[in-house]
Amino acid sequence: MSEIRNVTHIDNVRLCDDGRAVIILDQSRLPMHTEYLEISTPEEMYDAISHLKVRGAPAIGIFAAYCMAVIAKQLAVHESLENGNVQLFTKELKERAEYIKSSRPTAVNLAWAVDRTLAAAGRVKSGTADDIAEAVKNEALSIHREDIEMCRAISEYGLTVIKNGDGILTHCNAGPLATSRYGTALGPLLLGAERGMEFRVFADETRPLLQGARLTSYELQKAGIDVTLICDNMASAVMKNGWVQACFVGCDRVAANGDTANKIGTSGVAILAKHYGIPFYVLGPTSTIDLDCPSGEAIPIELRAPEEIKEKFYSEPVALDDVRCYNPAFDVTDSDLITGIITEKGICRPPFNESLRRAVEGGVADKDSNFQQEVWQSCGI
Amino acid sequence: MSEIRNVTHIDNVRLCDDGRAVIILDQSRLPMHTEYLEISTPEEMYDAISHLKVRGAPAIGIFAAYCMAVIAKQLAVHESLENGNVQLFTKELKERAEYIKSSRPTAVNLAWAVDRTLAAAGRVKSGTADDIAEAVKNEALSIHREDIEMCRAISEYGLTVIKNGDGILTHCNAGPLATSRYGTALGPLLLGAERGMEFRVFADETRPLLQGARLTSYELQKAGIDVTLICDNMASAVMKNGWVQACFVGCDRVAANGDTANKIGTSGVAILAKHYGIPFYVLGPTSTIDLDCPSGEAIPIELRAPEEIKEKFYSEPVALDDVRCYNPAFDVTDSDLITGIITEKGICRPPFNESLRRAVEGGVADKDSNFQQEVWQSCGI
Repeated sequence: MSEIRNVTHIDNVRLCDDGRAVIILDQSRLPMHTEYLEISTPEEMYDAISHLKVRGAPAIGIFAAYCMAVIAKQLAVHESLENGNVQLFTKELKERAEYIKSSRPTAVNLAWAVDRTLAAAGRVKSGTADDIAEAVKNEALSIHREDIEMCRAISEYGLTVIKNGDGILTHCNAGPLATSRYGTALGPLLLGAERGMEFRVFADETRPLLQGARLTSYELQKAGIDVTLICDNMASAVMKNGWVQACFVGCDRVAANGDTANKIGTSGVAILAKHYGIPFYVLGPTSTIDLDCPSGEAIPIELRAPEEIKEKFYSEPVALDDVRCYNPAFDVTDSDLITGIITEKGICRPPFNESLRRAVEGGVADKDSNFQQEVWQSCGI
Repeated sequence: MSEIRNVTHIDNVRLCDDGRAVIILDQSRLPMHTEYLEISTPEEMYDAISHLKVRGAPAIGIFAAYCMAVIAKQLAVHESLENGNVQLFTKELKERAEYIKSSRPTAVNLAWAVDRTLAAAGRVKSGTADDIAEAVKNEALSIHREDIEMCRAISEYGLTVIKNGDGILTHCNAGPLATSRYGTALGPLLLGAERGMEFRVFADETRPLLQGARLTSYELQKAGIDVTLICDNMASAVMKNGWVQACFVGCDRVAANGDTANKIGTSGVAILAKHYGIPFYVLGPTSTIDLDCPSGEAIPIELRAPEEIKEKFYSEPVALDDVRCYNPAFDVTDSDLITGIITEKGICRPPFNESLRRAVEGGVADKDSNFQQEVWQSCGI
């Protein structure tokens, strides 16, 4: 391990210094176009979310919270500060909050973050509009900080299961673009890079939406981490070559028994890893653990349009119009294929029914771990 | 099983009725453009092979043999039939043969087929140029017939391991476009369809060159066979759903121990099949069995350009220019993952060292098979 390195972190979402706009990296234009957008009107905010310029549940939440801070700031300057107008201010803030929330109704984190800022505004009982705007801004900063700290904690735990020089295979994108600073599955690699560790990452391109090609390889390349892009069907060859010491993937939902829903193709990677004797880790916050969901069978799988397979990204269609496609967005990886589920509270290992419950309900999941150092650290925001 | 059906066979390569041209389906334009080309000059022949308008080792061989027939016919008409000019005829035929062979120097079948037609020409000891041209044409027809009969035999044996209504998963393209009439891995499905059987085929799109999307789904759809196109990373989900009763794939080279090189991704499919308890069959002629190659470790794997992953088919690149790619064209499936290797001489089963040698050296490989019916049948050419 060499000395500590400066790793370039991608600033995917941040508040302008004067608090009047949110700056985002337009993810819909990646990887060929690195464009930052200054978002200041409610219409631009709505458009950024609905057109996937900002994507990834945590990143959407952070962005929406900053949007609320910007709106509150603008309203506070715009309205006079008399008492009656604080009511008007609050009314208008709530109206714009509903508008922002409607930009992507299925994004749970979006509503959660907006509502958190409104609740913070509501807790200011006798202040001016400026005071309320300040409270909204602070709540947005808290949401951002908490995400960085959570990703940081996941990254610290993840780092304990790999060593300098390891080859890591990842699928889809669970990096900083979708979250903040570290990400989940990519977090240990970025944190390790900061500490001078070197990894060799293999990124599945992740058809049909190519998140691995467009986002993961972009993030890692920009951070100066050794990344090799492969087609999904090359994972077996890469593992057979002896190049992979661990698989790191994110998760959309973890059932009580450890069955894990994640981007389509994840279960195949897990089966290959088991065949080749490679540990397979799922990384994600405890908020994705659903103890009310007994097993993977209870997780519904979204089916998407055939055009994503036959047309999207291509200069002309690659299959006949009348050829049927099966296009599930996710698959479920059976818990017996998973070595460990790495959360911000520690590493859950089999039997998952016990370790996941322990993680959700409180303490560090992995009681036997020697890993005792402080993983919640300052995020610098 | 219902009554016998007419299945539309794709005529990928055929000789014109007057023998003056070869008609091919331009595979480089598929699937969106079904265009037949009439090829009559040596330059067009060269171009068709080098620009992959005709592809697949057997199809290239058949095409090249017909090209030789066309050239011989043209020369026979062009030259006078005096004795001295038969020598000139033969000299010019050989010159054009070398030119055709140089169109794709690595295609073993190309040289093999051209040389076979030259040898047939050489066996005409005291005939006219017309006699020689007729001999070349007959040799070309024989090459075509033999390929159909071989595919037909593979298909017959393949049909014995599946039943009506089965779901079959296939990878890459080993169908009639690459061979003739039936193909290898797709052969049993087409032959079964002729007999009124119904299968549900899942075609891996097969990144990065998309042979599954562009060719396999095209061939099966045109033949009226139920086909569903999936991304390579969806094979695990499809198998987990219980939709697959057997996997059928082609092969580029089979080692003496049964290790099989085939299109990249094949080994992953085999590992998934083993995990889910699904039989995995390799289908190909005994000419692909290389008894001098002891195991898969001795098979070299071609590495191809990163542009195939990042740029080909796309309207703009999907990863940064400086992102490294690993792009092996093939992988090796270990023999212990293979249920059987289905050849024109029967089904080879483990231990493959014995069964493959038996197949290459003579009789039916699968001594225990009850399958005794005549599988070499008239091909109608």
